[in-house]
This record gives sequence, C-alpha cells and structure tokens, in this order.
Amino acid sequence: MSSQKEDCLGYAARDPSGFLSPYKFSRRALGNDDVSISITHCGVCYAEVLSTRNKFGKTKYPLVPGHELVGVVKEVGSNVKSVKVGDHVGVGTYVNSCRDCEYCGDGLEVYCSKGVVSTYNHVDVDGTITKGGFSTYIVVHHGYCFKIPEDYPLAAAAPLLCAGITVYSPMIRHKMNQRGKTLGVIGLGGLGHLAVKFGKAFGLNVTVFSTSTSKKEEAINLLGADKFVISSDQQEMMEVSKSLDFIIDTASGTHPFDPYMSLLRTGGVLVLVGAPGEVKLSPINLIHGMKSISGSASGGTKDTREMLDFCSANEIYPEIEIIPIQYVNEAIERLIKSDVKYRFVIDIENSLK
Amino acid sequence: MSSQKEDCLGYAARDPSGFLSPYKFSRRALGNDDVSISITHCGVCYAEVLSTRNKFGKTKYPLVPGHELVGVVKEVGSNVKSVKVGDHVGVGTYVNSCRDCEYCGDGLEVYCSKGVVSTYNHVDVDGTITKGGFSTYIVVHHGYCFKIPEDYPLAAAAPLLCAGITVYSPMIRHKMNQRGKTLGVIGLGGLGHLAVKFGKAFGLNVTVFSTSTSKKEEAINLLGADKFVISSDQQEMMEVSKSLDFIIDTASGTHPFDPYMSLLRTGGVLVLVGAPGEVKLSPINLIHGMKSISGSASGGTKDTREMLDFCSANEIYPEIEIIPIQYVNEAIERLIKSDVKYRFVIDIENSLK
Repeated sequence: MSSQKEDCLGYAARDPSGFLSPYKFSRRALGNDDVSISITHCGVCYAEVLSTRNKFGKTKYPLVPGHELVGVVKEVGSNVKSVKVGDHVGVGTYVNSCRDCEYCGDGLEVYCSKGVVSTYNHVDVDGTITKGGFSTYIVVHHGYCFKIPEDYPLAAAAPLLCAGITVYSPMIRHKMNQRGKTLGVIGLGGLGHLAVKFGKAFGLNVTVFSTSTSKKEEAINLLGADKFVISSDQQEMMEVSKSLDFIIDTASGTHPFDPYMSLLRTGGVLVLVGAPGEVKLSPINLIHGMKSISGSASGGTKDTREMLDFCSANEIYPEIEIIPIQYVNEAIERLIKSDVKYRFVIDIENSLK
Repeated sequence: MSSQKEDCLGYAARDPSGFLSPYKFSRRALGNDDVSISITHCGVCYAEVLSTRNKFGKTKYPLVPGHELVGVVKEVGSNVKSVKVGDHVGVGTYVNSCRDCEYCGDGLEVYCSKGVVSTYNHVDVDGTITKGGFSTYIVVHHGYCFKIPEDYPLAAAAPLLCAGITVYSPMIRHKMNQRGKTLGVIGLGGLGHLAVKFGKAFGLNVTVFSTSTSKKEEAINLLGADKFVISSDQQEMMEVSKSLDFIIDTASGTHPFDPYMSLLRTGGVLVLVGAPGEVKLSPINLIHGMKSISGSASGGTKDTREMLDFCSANEIYPEIEIIPIQYVNEAIERLIKSDVKYRFVIDIENSLK
C-alpha cells in the first residue's frame, strides 16, 4: 500500500484533542470486487466525538472519521454487477466482514462472527487501518456499498447510513412497523428525529422524551410526534405510564432507566442505540410485566437496502444542516452541546479540495 | 367473613422474625364459582423467606404463606364444570384477577391490567387478606385451580405451581423448546433444577452455572446437564463464550451480569426469574450482539395447564425433600443457605392437624 500515491485528501484527528485538519493518504488499488466512490457528502455522527477524542482508548491516529458517506461510483472492479459507474451509492458503519458466517449469510453483517470491519479506525483484512468518509474518495467491497435511488437527494441520504439504519433496524426486528403501536423516543438528535419520522411513517403513536422544552414545537409540528414529555416532569411521565410498546433510547451519557421501564406496557422493550453510561435498574421493573432492555448496533445490509427504498418511497428525509468541511471542528463542538437540528452533513464535494 | 367459624388451621408468621407457628382462621364461604380444596402438600419457595421476614416492607401479619399448593377437591360451587369432587388440583402464585382485560383474555392472568391477586398477603376482591397453602384447606375461584393428572404424584406436583411455571413460561415465550438450542441456567435451586429438566426434555444443550462445585455431580448425573461451570472460574467461563441462546437467571441476591452477557450468542436473552439485587451492566454488552436482559413472573393459566400436561407426559418430576410442617422454620433456615436438593415440600395432609 505504501507504494500507492497519496491521492486521497481527508480530514484527520492527530491526537486526543480531536482537532481535525487536512491529511493526505492513499487508498488501496481497486480490486475485482471493489467499488471506488467519489464522496459528495458525509454525515457527522456522535461516534466522531468519541473516536476523535479517543474516549474508548482505541483510536489509532491519524484518524479519518466518517461513516455516513454518499457519493458517485467512479470505477468498479471486474466482478461487480450490483452498481455501475455514475450510480449514487452510500457506505455505512462497516466496509467488510467474513461473508461466510451465519450472520453474514442472513444479511446481518454488522454481527459477523469473525467481527465486522468498521468504516474507520479498524484493521482491515489486508492489515491497513480503515479511513472514513471525511475524505474525497473511498474504495470498498461492493457488498457494503448501497445503491441510493436517483431521485433521493444525496446530502439527505448520508444520515440514513448510520443514524437511520440504527433506529430502523430494531424497529423492524421488534415488529414496530405495525400500525397503531405506541413508540417512545428518548432524545431528539440525529437518531431520535429519524425514529420519530419512521414511527409516523409506520402509523405509530409517537411520544418524544426530552430533558428540555426547546425542541417541543418542532417535534410536534415539524416531525409529527403525537406527544412531547419532559422526562424530569413526574406528572407528565405518570400520564404515559404503561402505555408504550417500545422505547428507542438514543440518549448519550448516564441517565436513569427505571422511570422509562415503568412507561412500558407488559412485554414492552426498551432498546439502547445511543452511547449511554452504565445501565442500572431494578429487576422488579423487568420481572413485573416481562419487560426487556435490549441493544442494537446499526443494521445489516438487508435492512439497509430495505430502509433506503422505504425512505425513497415514503419521502422520508432527515433534517440536516449542510456544512463545509472547514467547519467540522465547530460542528463537533456544537454536536456535543446537542446544538444541531438534527444532523450535520459535510458537503465534501464542494469544500474538500 | 368474621361470622365464619375458624375451621382452617395454618402456620403463620406473626412478626419480622418470620417464625411460623400454628394459627386458626376462617376461609370464605364457597361461592358458585369456587372450589374448596383439602390441601395435601405445599412447596416452600424463596418468596417465603422474603415475605415472612417482611423484606419488601409489605407483609401483613399474621401471614400464612405458601403458593405451591396441591390437594383434593372437597366441594365445588354450582357453576364449576372444570373440576369435580375428588379431583387432584393445584393452585399457584395467584388466586384472582379481573378476568376481563386483554392479559386475562390471553391466559396471561399474572400480568392482569388491574393487578393479579397473589395467593397470600394480598387484598382479595372482597377486601380480605389472602392466606396461602401452609394450611389445611383453601377456597379459590375455579379459574385459578389447575387439574393435576391422576397418575402424577401430588407431592411432586407442588413445586411445579411456582418454581416450575416460573422457568417454563419464559422458555416457551422465547422459543426455547426447540431442539438443539443452548441454555444456560444460573443457580441450581428449586427453579434452576427444573430449568435443567425442562431444557433436557426440550432437547437443549444445557450448561449450569454455580458458585461452588458441590452440586456438579448431581447436575450432570441426576439432572442431565451437559456442562457445569464455576462462575468465578474465568477460564471455564471463557470456554462457553458466545455459545448460549438463552440464560435463565434464578439466582437471588446481587451478582454481576456482564460476565454472563458475554456468554450469549448474537440476539441472545438473559431472563431474570429470581430475586436479584440491582441490575447493573455495560450497555456495550447489549448493543454488540443485539442482546437483551428480560424478566418474567411465574406464568399464566394457559402455560400452567400446558406445563402440567408436559410434565406428566414426559415424566418430569421435581427433586423434593418432604417435610412435616413442624420442620418448616428449620427448612426456611436451610433454604437461605441453599441447603436443599432441590425443593422442600410440606406434607400438610399428614402433619398439619
């Protein structure tokens, strides 16, 4: 790989300050099964906050983040039939897996037995460290490259590849695409606002839980939520007691779980999709009412393809703020303060040159 | 009720010492929908430890415990068709519910919307406090009275009504009656030993987790477990990593959950059926592998009937130590020390006079 010319321009963090700055590097040569993509846009996920600052202690610097990337196919390997030059495509949180285990066989590659290869900061099959979508182009195996319908705006498609699939996948798995069911959404950021949109498209009754009223009006009028509850208001919480079939918890950081468990109906499930702190709750809140707390990590290729088609068919578009790459450090600071409605998307095509 | 003669002899706890001693009281007059049962045997559940000693702060003294009672029908109300005088029957952890909500309608009475009426220490529909099976007879609505097959020993049937249904019901709900699946059982007491027996009858591969080797030989040779793991032995735990579809946690008291979550396969579930302390775990152990931690409380009438027939058809019998009622205080002390293989059953018929 070191023989390749450094023709890919990206933005990389160099140390735990997390500050991102221009960085030139090489991508692998196009293999027979690969697709080379000119990146037009890339979403900014909360994972970028954690990884650039080495919050998991596993960051390999220089780190080129970004796992909600979309763009245009510029070259395909000889075996690739699924996409062709000029197609709009996206890549999500992973770029490789064994393609041999039962999970890969079931289209659940994110749970690959041998471990999925993440889109950045991960050792790829060839020993190199993967580099993400804060860059001008990428080379990936066609199996992890999703076609985006031509009429769907590329910028809006970006957040679907992580935020979208992360909430869509557990909703499908827990049969929350059945009209009339009741959904709770904790947190109204990139993931939460898409959970509300999917919920309404599935015909659910949706209640949003937030720590402040600042997003109430938009939650109801823009996103279409049926109810907005301030989670610290015991009276408001009481009013939705035992009423929810399912809660998607998109909150980051430590928060109590018992108050939410009591809002679930018998057999209800709370699913964690954010990056919460330690999970602590009373066993009684699980035992009485055979409730569950569960987790979910993005989703497999099967669900991802289905979701992209579903969004296109139902005209579901993430709410985004498009930014130039030069603004990314400020955007990440704002993301930490939840100051975004509701996902930053970097205009790679027009700003990274 | 106060006009009734006090013709029922029981054993009651009078204060938080939990000491049980003879106590005379009245039962309600037989209603048109009721069954009067001469109690022959009653199992001793860990709930008796907690309730007699007021560990939940809700004990109403005098407390007559016992919710694994079996006996012979001595009288039935005019509307009762399901059982007749002379039939062998049992009563489990509840004696009433609304019979009107969706859960009651689905045979899931234990999750009744209006709240199920527990077999003891609970306010019944008529305002009296329910009294359990540590007594000579009981009067219950026929809907909560289960026929026990004639050829099934009554003493052995008793533990099925709580310990049995508590492990059977989540196994059925989570499709753990499918041959070849892998089951983990934490704790080898009244509940755990029945989980092993059901698991083997369902054709599962069963691993028992225990804190000591003392029950290893019996777990394998008597109960038929495939594997026995000392939970503090990291090497043994590693060997079953990511191998289990389902874990039934019957342990009482505080214990760590993370080590067990890592033993589950992708999509695996750990279900709490004991009386553990606070549940604390890392969210990563739920998110990676879309795992769940869930709870379950005994089971409804539908599952209970099915389980009794299953045990009879498959000759599944709890391992019991039969004791006279006069030994019950010592038995409860031994139960606290897990010194029982595997359930005490009181011979009410021959000792309570």
